[in-house]
Amino acid sequence: MKKIGVFTSGGDSPGMNACIRAVVRTALHEGLAVAGIRRGYQGFIDGDIYDMDHHSVSNIIQQGGTILRSARCSEFHSPEGRQQAYENLAKFGIDGIVAIGGDGTFTGASIFMQEHPEIKFVGCPGTIDNDLLGTDYTIGYDTAINTAMEAIDKIRDTASAHDRLFFIEVMGRDAGFIAMAAGIATGAEAILIPETHTDIEGLIKKLEWGWENKKNSSIVVVAEGDEAGGAHKIAEMVKARLSRYEIKVSILGHIQRGGRPSCMERVRASRMGVAATQALIAGKSNVMIGIVNNQIVYTPFHQCIKEHQQMDSALVEMVDVLS
Amino acid sequence: MKKIGVFTSGGDSPGMNACIRAVVRTALHEGLAVAGIRRGYQGFIDGDIYDMDHHSVSNIIQQGGTILRSARCSEFHSPEGRQQAYENLAKFGIDGIVAIGGDGTFTGASIFMQEHPEIKFVGCPGTIDNDLLGTDYTIGYDTAINTAMEAIDKIRDTASAHDRLFFIEVMGRDAGFIAMAAGIATGAEAILIPETHTDIEGLIKKLEWGWENKKNSSIVVVAEGDEAGGAHKIAEMVKARLSRYEIKVSILGHIQRGGRPSCMERVRASRMGVAATQALIAGKSNVMIGIVNNQIVYTPFHQCIKEHQQMDSALVEMVDVLS
Amino acid sequence: MKKIGVFTSGGDSPGMNACIRAVVRTALHEGLAVAGIRRGYQGFIDGDIYDMDHHSVSNIIQQGGTILRSARCSEFHSPEGRQQAYENLAKFGIDGIVAIGGDGTFTGASIFMQEHPEIKFVGCPGTIDNDLLGTDYTIGYDTAINTAMEAIDKIRDTASAHDRLFFIEVMGRDAGFIAMAAGIATGAEAILIPETHTDIEGLIKKLEWGWENKKNSSIVVVAEGDEAGGAHKIAEMVKARLSRYEIKVSILGHIQRGGRPSCMERVRASRMGVAATQALIAGKSNVMIGIVNNQIVYTPFHQCIKEHQQMDSALVEMVDVLS
Amino acid sequence: MKKIGVFTSGGDSPGMNACIRAVVRTALHEGLAVAGIRRGYQGFIDGDIYDMDHHSVSNIIQQGGTILRSARCSEFHSPEGRQQAYENLAKFGIDGIVAIGGDGTFTGASIFMQEHPEIKFVGCPGTIDNDLLGTDYTIGYDTAINTAMEAIDKIRDTASAHDRLFFIEVMGRDAGFIAMAAGIATGAEAILIPETHTDIEGLIKKLEWGWENKKNSSIVVVAEGDEAGGAHKIAEMVKARLSRYEIKVSILGHIQRGGRPSCMERVRASRMGVAATQALIAGKSNVMIGIVNNQIVYTPFHQCIKEHQQMDSALVEMVDVLS
Repeated sequence: MKKIGVFTSGGDSPGMNACIRAVVRTALHEGLAVAGIRRGYQGFIDGDIYDMDHHSVSNIIQQGGTILRSARCSEFHSPEGRQQAYENLAKFGIDGIVAIGGDGTFTGASIFMQEHPEIKFVGCPGTIDNDLLGTDYTIGYDTAINTAMEAIDKIRDTASAHDRLFFIEVMGRDAGFIAMAAGIATGAEAILIPETHTDIEGLIKKLEWGWENKKNSSIVVVAEGDEAGGAHKIAEMVKARLSRYEIKVSILGHIQRGGRPSCMERVRASRMGVAATQALIAGKSNVMIGIVNNQIVYTPFHQCIKEHQQMDSALVEMVDVLS
Repeated sequence: MKKIGVFTSGGDSPGMNACIRAVVRTALHEGLAVAGIRRGYQGFIDGDIYDMDHHSVSNIIQQGGTILRSARCSEFHSPEGRQQAYENLAKFGIDGIVAIGGDGTFTGASIFMQEHPEIKFVGCPGTIDNDLLGTDYTIGYDTAINTAMEAIDKIRDTASAHDRLFFIEVMGRDAGFIAMAAGIATGAEAILIPETHTDIEGLIKKLEWGWENKKNSSIVVVAEGDEAGGAHKIAEMVKARLSRYEIKVSILGHIQRGGRPSCMERVRASRMGVAATQALIAGKSNVMIGIVNNQIVYTPFHQCIKEHQQMDSALVEMVDVLS
Repeated sequence: MKKIGVFTSGGDSPGMNACIRAVVRTALHEGLAVAGIRRGYQGFIDGDIYDMDHHSVSNIIQQGGTILRSARCSEFHSPEGRQQAYENLAKFGIDGIVAIGGDGTFTGASIFMQEHPEIKFVGCPGTIDNDLLGTDYTIGYDTAINTAMEAIDKIRDTASAHDRLFFIEVMGRDAGFIAMAAGIATGAEAILIPETHTDIEGLIKKLEWGWENKKNSSIVVVAEGDEAGGAHKIAEMVKARLSRYEIKVSILGHIQRGGRPSCMERVRASRMGVAATQALIAGKSNVMIGIVNNQIVYTPFHQCIKEHQQMDSALVEMVDVLS
Repeated sequence: MKKIGVFTSGGDSPGMNACIRAVVRTALHEGLAVAGIRRGYQGFIDGDIYDMDHHSVSNIIQQGGTILRSARCSEFHSPEGRQQAYENLAKFGIDGIVAIGGDGTFTGASIFMQEHPEIKFVGCPGTIDNDLLGTDYTIGYDTAINTAMEAIDKIRDTASAHDRLFFIEVMGRDAGFIAMAAGIATGAEAILIPETHTDIEGLIKKLEWGWENKKNSSIVVVAEGDEAGGAHKIAEMVKARLSRYEIKVSILGHIQRGGRPSCMERVRASRMGVAATQALIAGKSNVMIGIVNNQIVYTPFHQCIKEHQQMDSALVEMVDVLS
């Protein structure tokens, strides 16, 4: 291993910069050169690659977003595109790569390595959704749930002042991890997630009960990918049946992707960046770095792609008890 | 003046609790009794009124929302409703009232005082919109613009990572004050407000220019009451013409009404609450308290209702220079 | 088990309220009565105990501090005091207790149970220091490190503007967990903790090297219990040797104990509160609830008291690589 | 006017970057060249000056600190130093300068202009202390009071949990503006500022009264420049007399200088930067830009240096009423 490239791909998430910084500083500390590749796989195709030194990553650990940016790239889906990518990497002398992203990113890396096995990829789990197998926490999740929670706390203030029922949609197309954590943390009356069946009748009964028992506001947190629909749709269904309540909808949206990373986010992202670089040096490849039970673990890309992190049923059960 | 009532009405706003606390503590300090009226004019009708002491307002200065809550009340629109309200006030011995709210609240108070002139009302401007005549700052505005700004800062992170164009809708049905402050503070490329004509052609040209000059993200802040439509509608119009850009929309929504009040919010809300109570004691009535040029001023309700705060043209001009 | 008491003791920490809420709601959900005991063991002695219902814990999940308050209590150290405590518990019909606190709290509970075995105690780890054996995270730690990090981020701004060297002292009399996380997350040049030997010579060399290599600010995070002394003392030692640098000291202090709990704090504190209550119902006693590898575990009090959580050596090694 | 230089000097303050950005963008918009001078007057001496374009100030509006940095500079105190500074400015073609700082900064500019009248200086008030004559708000004040308030809010949590009396020292060597705003906003029981006589006897009586009337915590906010001493000294005096209370001291320190600027901070700093640049173009010089009653005003440097902003007596009186 002589020169390591690092890039971010897929939806950006807070903590990616901390991870990039750790990759760069670890590579330099180990005597390797290191280069940044901009805009995900698009930068492979375009040769948008630049050498990085110690100062390239100064003062970024606390910043949201990613200094290397991200993009979709259709050209990388073709063998010709990947060939061009390979030639660019060869030109820059890159023989190992830390890929920070989600399962789409790792799929791309897997295919690339089948064609160009002399380039080694190690992945770091960068997504706010926390649904990747092989790690307790993905980079971005802890910050996203804090952002969602703070937003819902604010909405609770105004919901209580007006005796309102709010349906709040958080991110999570395939997974309810953000909804679950932000919902429990804000005392949501119900949390609707893709992993469980959404029982609209049961929800309406629960909300009626809460209202009659003098709750002066109710919050239902909805993961955007809930199988019963998003917050707007579910609110409509409920409104048709609970007409006497004032119902409002709020879609938290893209604020959940940005913001300064939380402390544990930065620590974990740093640790994964260090581990990914050390793994490349140790000859590992085709694996994603994760932290499980506070230990670094390595999960083959194909496994991360196929399976997903399971929702903890203990959390699901808690919601009814606590609200 | 023997006993002062205090209530909040209309949309709630951060800082209302600091104002309530100041009214209660000032009344007690001046030897008066003080009562809280719950849920706006609805509490007048229902007699939902309770005596308050020093501890009733402990530990609320930092809380968003309003401990007295708010509600719409159609019964207060009829003379019969107001008669009932009057009787409840008489029953509780209330002869002066601090009304925390917006022009709807003051309209109600004006009509009531015509019928029942022995009850004196003084108003405090409670609305996040900052559009009331007679005060430089309304209670809630400073917190709302900080909330909107922090949300847009987060969106900027992800917009920059992905070269995206975001249309972000902030509150402001009739006024662009939130949009203007939050837009300037986040370096928005354009700010669309009800007070000025929205030139979609000009906007598109500006966005094209920005894109070609290597801006890696663009933010357009839209007040919900902009005459060209909300963020979704404007985004559609732009998308039809700038098809090559990835355009996203975010509606900040009700997070702008909640949250812990900022420092100046609490200071100003406290000051207005003190002044309102002192004004009642001094025999003033039918006026709204404001702070203009750092001095307490009194503006007749009918004037606050008729006219609105003007947008500062200096700010409008700054947007083009700075973005 | 008929009636559960809950109290907080020792230094307060953010998330204690979320834990109290979970205990109360779980007990009620399981058909048990529940009472709050105020001001730690002092409330046992004074009989400062009150029945709680569903609303007693409304709207507290997001609040720092503890609604049950905390205090030191010398009377509980004597058998007479504990006898009085026992009689008060009997009077209120309390036969199970959730104790939220640290090792001092659990020591008190252990001694009490030897004398009065018919009262069962289960503990929840409430301390910002994270040094309790038997849990990956204590209640308060995640919030405290975010608070410390945000403070250090702010200091970094001004340190960079002025080319300054800052010694920043964080809490941790016996443990460096807060220092380690907050230091890594803010890119500290060095982190001095009780668990490792502090090499002042090495520190000075490192700071000199950093300065000569054009770092425009340096941050050294010091745990208050570092064996070389607190931040003031260490700054003096360094100042004597690095006279050309402008050195400043900041003691973060009690801000680290307060503040609204983070999202994971609330989730974990809730989960532990639920588990503690269920453990009492299941007949468990004399154990502390912990979360290890995302699972609920039970550690005997005597073990929590004797041993401490070990610092992860991987983190210690990372500091030199990353700064 | 052909080329404008901009620098920051004295203690840094949040919002300085927003002001720099506004100067640069306004100059470019008006067709002028613009250069940044680093590290205050030291950069004049060293010729540490660089040309700035539109991108030089991208993405800085939200950052604390100052990208141009600041420093003390003894050489500028001598005519020889100032001659060298003049030659450097001439070499870079700079004929107008925006100076962002406090009265020390403006004193330097005044002396320089007497010797080198062909260089024009206009000032922007950059200090967290808010004590400059000629403006309602200095750049940094609004953010600093929010930072201080949030810290005190956190301390209130733990103070309440433990029935403690806290003496909290905030910045303000000569002025109590930060103490006054942060103290009112956090419901402080007393606020000790340099502008008023500190009556220790009266303070002790007040604290005793509060304690006996069941306040479960007390906060005294002390400006560092209070004539009775800092928080540590005053706490000692009180402790000697109120021995039964647990008294703690917290020095908020340098966190008050950093952090992301608040919304109004960014808006005002931007507005002042625009106005300063336009003033230079309009031929103004030797004046500080201020915002008074929401209008731009110009105050001669010698006046800003001689006199200070007065504390509003209405605020002083409010403290006793509200606490």
